[in-house]
Amino acid sequence: MAIGEEIFRPGSSSDGEVRAGILVTGTEVLTATIRDENGPWLSEQLSGLGVELVEILVVADHPGDLARGLENMKSAGIDLIITTGGLGPTADDLTAEVVAAFSGRKMELDEEMEARIAAILARFAANTNLDLSTDALNEANRKQAMIPVGAVALDPVGTAPGLIVPGQAEGDPLVLVLPGPPRELKPMWEAAQKEPMLRQVLDQATRLEKYRLRMFGTPESELAMSLREIEGEGLPFDGLEITTCLRKGEVEVDVRYREAAADAAEQLKQSLLERHSRSLYSLDGSTVDEVVAGLLAGRRLGLAESCSAGLLAARIADVPGSSAYFAGGVVCYSNEAKRDLLGVDQALLDEFGAVSAEVAEAMAVGALERFDADVSVAITGIAGPDGGTGDKPVGLVHFNVRTAEGGVRAAAPIIPGGRRDVRERSALVAMHLLREILA
Amino acid sequence: MAIGEEIFRPGSSSDGEVRAGILVTGTEVLTATIRDENGPWLSEQLSGLGVELVEILVVADHPGDLARGLENMKSAGIDLIITTGGLGPTADDLTAEVVAAFSGRKMELDEEMEARIAAILARFAANTNLDLSTDALNEANRKQAMIPVGAVALDPVGTAPGLIVPGQAEGDPLVLVLPGPPRELKPMWEAAQKEPMLRQVLDQATRLEKYRLRMFGTPESELAMSLREIEGEGLPFDGLEITTCLRKGEVEVDVRYREAAADAAEQLKQSLLERHSRSLYSLDGSTVDEVVAGLLAGRRLGLAESCSAGLLAARIADVPGSSAYFAGGVVCYSNEAKRDLLGVDQALLDEFGAVSAEVAEAMAVGALERFDADVSVAITGIAGPDGGTGDKPVGLVHFNVRTAEGGVRAAAPIIPGGRRDVRERSALVAMHLLREILA
Repeated sequence: MAIGEEIFRPGSSSDGEVRAGILVTGTEVLTATIRDENGPWLSEQLSGLGVELVEILVVADHPGDLARGLENMKSAGIDLIITTGGLGPTADDLTAEVVAAFSGRKMELDEEMEARIAAILARFAANTNLDLSTDALNEANRKQAMIPVGAVALDPVGTAPGLIVPGQAEGDPLVLVLPGPPRELKPMWEAAQKEPMLRQVLDQATRLEKYRLRMFGTPESELAMSLREIEGEGLPFDGLEITTCLRKGEVEVDVRYREAAADAAEQLKQSLLERHSRSLYSLDGSTVDEVVAGLLAGRRLGLAESCSAGLLAARIADVPGSSAYFAGGVVCYSNEAKRDLLGVDQALLDEFGAVSAEVAEAMAVGALERFDADVSVAITGIAGPDGGTGDKPVGLVHFNVRTAEGGVRAAAPIIPGGRRDVRERSALVAMHLLREILA
Repeated sequence: MAIGEEIFRPGSSSDGEVRAGILVTGTEVLTATIRDENGPWLSEQLSGLGVELVEILVVADHPGDLARGLENMKSAGIDLIITTGGLGPTADDLTAEVVAAFSGRKMELDEEMEARIAAILARFAANTNLDLSTDALNEANRKQAMIPVGAVALDPVGTAPGLIVPGQAEGDPLVLVLPGPPRELKPMWEAAQKEPMLRQVLDQATRLEKYRLRMFGTPESELAMSLREIEGEGLPFDGLEITTCLRKGEVEVDVRYREAAADAAEQLKQSLLERHSRSLYSLDGSTVDEVVAGLLAGRRLGLAESCSAGLLAARIADVPGSSAYFAGGVVCYSNEAKRDLLGVDQALLDEFGAVSAEVAEAMAVGALERFDADVSVAITGIAGPDGGTGDKPVGLVHFNVRTAEGGVRAAAPIIPGGRRDVRERSALVAMHLLREILA
């Protein structure tokens, strides 16, 4: 943990009665060809169920590595192993076999499953015009319909069934075998939870309650000090798991707790709100994009973006239904565009330069007019890597946010980081200025 | 491996002489509070050096889990273990101690390092106005300056030094201890490679050559068929490791090979180029954004975006130096904006609707004029989730790309997926239409 990241865990959740491990198989994940989405997603699911995740292990599609991973998790006293990937029809899809061997179970053809997969594959081949011979189909089909004796087969979402495989001895881990593609894994995880064999293990965990706060403008170090003060004033932190995390320029505070600590969790929320009423803008996990979308309902927004060049427009339009309030924006990357499309006076550009409070104001006024808007945002800055001067360094960004009724918020921070950081952070700062002016 | 993902690995790289494991420590990574960037990044670095990555293990900041991970990697015959995270000044930053114990080495105060860290921390405290007492500073400082006897200390990039820790016995793994924040880890990895102790291990690996091809418009299944055909025609695939991956709407083909297979690798590239000359647009790994940036040099670009709402502008402006050719764009999210800012005839909007070939053309013509541009792009479509009709379903997007000299590319695909998919894919399609018209 570096300075500025803080995890308070005085009452750690490591008294959770159920311990889990996630085993991600896939050469394409290990070689960083694709990013693993399943590990983090399953981690959040387990956390919500009160299950303690001990480790995530990523290995290639080699049976030896997979078997070793399973054995190591068993040695670590893990109760539930979730594997992802390696369930396809090809030769390097070996998870089911390796898990069967690990659990001391033979593989057996499940004829009903074979018929079900045959139907799915036939449909798939017809839809995609794949030139799959009947023999190849049958072989792939049969391979995927081989189920360890005593295991529960989970209906395929794609073409591969999942599995719940019990151990042989008391205390052996239960293995949940899920497919790799996230669109298949997620629904199958939901289905698996309805199976008594998995349910029995999950039900031994005590569920955790959770809330998430979001803050903008308070450094993480200051928040850490507040947490220490609140604890010093006598609020019991036992039973609370508090994680603070700097993410995309905002601080997220995740608080997890068991039922018994619900009062302390609520008091903590109120104490943070008292101390950081300006920066603590979200008590229910809603994002600034969602908050601003709510505030914009019934209004009309126009944008004028230079250095952020569409990033703010893209964020605004990312919310479904935004066309009700988002009139549009001008990406005025050149001085001519500022002048011709937003009516910025050439004299202002000559006198103060494109990155100035004066031009930002003229851009915002222009956006109000051109889009016949109730509220507008202007962003003009130096994203770098070149173009900075002594007076106007790389990272200097001028903001002007205004309403048709005459409200104004202006700011000109120097945003640290590289070109992309400066541009993305510009859109974020603008979001918060919008939130403030509309609130 | 699911159908549609293909990895050809007839001559696997698993004969690499150096085996590595990555041990990511951090409760915040395990709980999915932050995403691990270091594992995938280091994986690519190792691959380039010809080192075989056996596993990536993520554990919480618990010394027991960390120690167990190290022991398991040692048992698996791993030569090089890279740990990330847990080097900070706080109590749960335990990596250095645990690695020292694992390698059978005592910790010793490195006084020179202590002085160096003291200077860094003093500067840090002054810059951030942190209320750190001298005692607290000294303690944090001393903790970070404790170095295992016989280890090489790597200069801090943030406040924490890295370590290269040799084992006690012949064949014990070498442990490279790196900090968690990517901005610290990356430069320290570069520095570590200059140290003879690490160099000696890395030099035992045979470096792999590599190239990356990018394709747009060829389905992965068709590419898989081409690869089978090329192999069938007698090109030896032994010694080539071919990974194909669908990423953000394009297909990436990574080919890794040792020196001896260089001819086969080159022949493969030529054979793919013959078969897919239209879709195979990048032979050197350059992205479409980079290719288009090169083609735009000396021209002037104007954009008119409706459903993509700034995403194309943001991609164009993401390239440093783009202000030389990017005049700007209009995000015309409303009909009024299409009319008032781009001069689209209200009669066209009334007769054909905002999502039509006619309006796309008028938007592109308007963008050429308003930005005094040489080339323009117009995008108008239905991103969903609402707004689709029988004639114009969600996902229908009209493109019109044109040059001042009269060149035109128009397209109107139905893009599958959710709102964000449709919008992002729209920007991608536009990039490729730009590439085609400028090439």
